[in-house]
Amino acid sequence: MTRRGLLLLAHGARDPAWALPFEAVAAQVRASGAAAAVELAFLEFMAPDLAAAGERLAAAGCDRIELVPLFLGAGGHVRKDVPRLLEALRQRHPAIDWVLQPAAGEDARVVAALAAVAVAPTAHG
Amino acid sequence: MTRRGLLLLAHGARDPAWALPFEAVAAQVRASGAAAAVELAFLEFMAPDLAAAGERLAAAGCDRIELVPLFLGAGGHVRKDVPRLLEALRQRHPAIDWVLQPAAGEDARVVAALAAVAVAPTAHG
Repeated sequence: MTRRGLLLLAHGARDPAWALPFEAVAAQVRASGAAAAVELAFLEFMAPDLAAAGERLAAAGCDRIELVPLFLGAGGHVRKDVPRLLEALRQRHPAIDWVLQPAAGEDARVVAALAAVAVAPTAHG
Repeated sequence: MTRRGLLLLAHGARDPAWALPFEAVAAQVRASGAAAAVELAFLEFMAPDLAAAGERLAAAGCDRIELVPLFLGAGGHVRKDVPRLLEALRQRHPAIDWVLQPAAGEDARVVAALAAVAVAPTAHG
């Protein structure tokens, strides 16, 4: 049976409070039980980085690891930096199936949620 | 009766494709009919900027304009740059009620959508 790992990637920022929504997403993903292991990683400013988080999932015995960019727009980071970083993990662990998912903002559910929040910004928490 | 304007703000990037999810959000907000006028603005790299988009909403006769940061994390941009830019618009148009909404990523609906996408990345489009 496949042991699925989820590698959630956010941009990162200098302000520690910046990470709160992403930690909330990671907590919900963990609570869903959809994966054997879940890690949250950052491209810049915050730890762990993608390499360290990927190693943790590999060490946890995951044989399929899906990288989910928690980015709304797909610019240079998602199109260039992320594939390069993922390729480095793939070369270190060729037996693992590394899968790059699209940027979260390309998903219709995220677009709909953002539109709903703009129209009725009431459910913050 | 209040004439509501919605000022959606995204970060912006060099790659034109980056803006696609935000344009989709703006289209959904316009289609909802929730506001008399809707503008999408960018902090960097893309046009219009916040000042230009705010002027358009003012010229459209909006008397309450809500700024919705389409940001997941609230770092320096949302905490410092955006209030400063909004204050400049407020001083130019003091009769308009300018309201700064929280970053979209602080909304439970957006967190839930991101978690759903991470768990089941199937509904892209």
